[in-house]
Amino acid sequence: MNPKLQWLRNKMNSLDMQGIIISNPINVRYLTNIDAEGTLLLTRKENIYITDARYIEHVHSILTLYDEIIVYDINDVSKDDYENFFLFCENVGFEEYYTTYAEYKELIRKYKINNLVETEHIIEKQRMIKDEEEISNLTKACNITDECFKYILGYIKPGMTEKQIAKEIEDYYNSRTDGVSFDTIVASGENTSMPHAVPTDRKIKEKDIITIDMGCKVNGYCSDMTRTFFVGEILEEVKPIYDLVLKNQVQTMQDFKDGISTRLLAKMVENDFKLHDYDLIHSLGHGVGLEIHEAPYISYKNDTNLKENMVITNEPGIYIPGKFGVRIEDTVQITKFGCVSLTNSDKNYIVI
Amino acid sequence: MNPKLQWLRNKMNSLDMQGIIISNPINVRYLTNIDAEGTLLLTRKENIYITDARYIEHVHSILTLYDEIIVYDINDVSKDDYENFFLFCENVGFEEYYTTYAEYKELIRKYKINNLVETEHIIEKQRMIKDEEEISNLTKACNITDECFKYILGYIKPGMTEKQIAKEIEDYYNSRTDGVSFDTIVASGENTSMPHAVPTDRKIKEKDIITIDMGCKVNGYCSDMTRTFFVGEILEEVKPIYDLVLKNQVQTMQDFKDGISTRLLAKMVENDFKLHDYDLIHSLGHGVGLEIHEAPYISYKNDTNLKENMVITNEPGIYIPGKFGVRIEDTVQITKFGCVSLTNSDKNYIVI
Repeated sequence: MNPKLQWLRNKMNSLDMQGIIISNPINVRYLTNIDAEGTLLLTRKENIYITDARYIEHVHSILTLYDEIIVYDINDVSKDDYENFFLFCENVGFEEYYTTYAEYKELIRKYKINNLVETEHIIEKQRMIKDEEEISNLTKACNITDECFKYILGYIKPGMTEKQIAKEIEDYYNSRTDGVSFDTIVASGENTSMPHAVPTDRKIKEKDIITIDMGCKVNGYCSDMTRTFFVGEILEEVKPIYDLVLKNQVQTMQDFKDGISTRLLAKMVENDFKLHDYDLIHSLGHGVGLEIHEAPYISYKNDTNLKENMVITNEPGIYIPGKFGVRIEDTVQITKFGCVSLTNSDKNYIVI
Repeated sequence: MNPKLQWLRNKMNSLDMQGIIISNPINVRYLTNIDAEGTLLLTRKENIYITDARYIEHVHSILTLYDEIIVYDINDVSKDDYENFFLFCENVGFEEYYTTYAEYKELIRKYKINNLVETEHIIEKQRMIKDEEEISNLTKACNITDECFKYILGYIKPGMTEKQIAKEIEDYYNSRTDGVSFDTIVASGENTSMPHAVPTDRKIKEKDIITIDMGCKVNGYCSDMTRTFFVGEILEEVKPIYDLVLKNQVQTMQDFKDGISTRLLAKMVENDFKLHDYDLIHSLGHGVGLEIHEAPYISYKNDTNLKENMVITNEPGIYIPGKFGVRIEDTVQITKFGCVSLTNSDKNYIVI
């Protein structure tokens, strides 16, 4: 059996769970490499993947005997089959953060489960710690992101629109990777004041401030990087804010290490911003893996201790409504005594 | 108040519901035009949208006084505010098909709701019937899809890869619309046997069969069209299958009208396929609107009677594993006594 399924079986044992229903396709992919629509069941004795005719060919092409996963076409699963899968299972786990209330009721009805129990993100928690292969994929995605950023700095010229620049980034990624890990943000001038700006037809002009938030996927694993830079010259009013954001980004990088509290990290940046009369209006960072946003979340609302081989973003930002915003973000691997930044583009003032 | 919110308030009255929590962003967009992350609450007296700092500027730019929606920054909503929103509400509705089991428990806790009741897709059911403005947007998206298909037929040459063709379609859409409504499918040769094929580096060659499934969005509204066509000549073994798919697609078009059962429509195609020893392995069609797949679903599993101004797809397909597949799909508006196809590209044998 593949090591991730074996891990899950051991975990289930320790939780007195005799069966589990995995519905979240990202968790299915993490455990099995299957990238399709379907449901993974771990029953007392078998690993079963139920999918439909659209995916059967693809699923068979991914799995090997070694995976020990039996694949069913959903149209061949009878009412009795469903009721037999978890026969004699006292507790069956489900993903309460993924399964809708309507689906929850349907699971109980369809599988005739007596005790459908919450699993409290067990797989997501395991996904926080990346193995060697995952880190290799994340590193590749980050390297290509650095290269793409370098390329795009040379590409941007006054007169181009935000949309045009975003498209060039996406083309760059599409020809080298699985594609973007999220919709590329290219914001210029006053548009930079919106953290989630969508690229517009606004044309880049002299003295503009530009924020680009970009990332791609390699074998399903995401990168995430933001840089804020300038056309021709840096407006004086932007400098102190850029410096404050950068100072906090660098400080956070120095504080990152196995054991440190995510709440504390976010609080420190928040306090320093507040001292200067600014707010941190979004979280300081988030885990990155098969999803662009995944656990752990680096925010005052959430307390996790960072652990070796977590991969997270570090992205403080300050936004002055209607005027401009500055955000600087790297994707970072936590190590025993510190961290390694996987994105490595320049963070000092960049003027193009 | 805008007419869609007014409709919902009337509906709530008739269901003895004094409050409702709308979490699905597509439903929020349908009711308010807001395209952001947040929650819409209809309380006894007020319409409230709770979002976070990232979207506040955008939301204010969308809403007018006429909408009568009060916008809150989630950070300014206190524990007491939450508990007061639905004070004296006997029944509060929630979206049980969207809300996870964990969120459901959290809603009860946070809002102190006594009776959180299922709403059985009330908004999705209303969304099935399109108004004039929605049909205008859908028609535009379909027209651009016809134009794009015409363009792409002239563009494709042997030696090009599936990925390259998909990219050309996406570029066409990106420069004229809000972008694609789903990942474009370009499948060639044996890849056409997978209904959900992802474009590969396979190069188009003489005598190839090609299936393209494509669509774009205009003001959020989607188009969806598939054509199967040929390079140089049509293989003899494909013809009878193409003819059978086309016959059923045309027959379905003739059967579409206000009042007809979706199950019956699917059954008729299925039976005709079975008579020829083939199966209909996916649904015959689906609603199209703000989502590329939405109610109603045209399948034997689902019984709805079609109604005037529903917009749905008609997409029979036959797939011979490892060999080839044929699918022909249009987006169609149901009328009182028949239907109007919104996509109108040629469906007879197309040879490029």
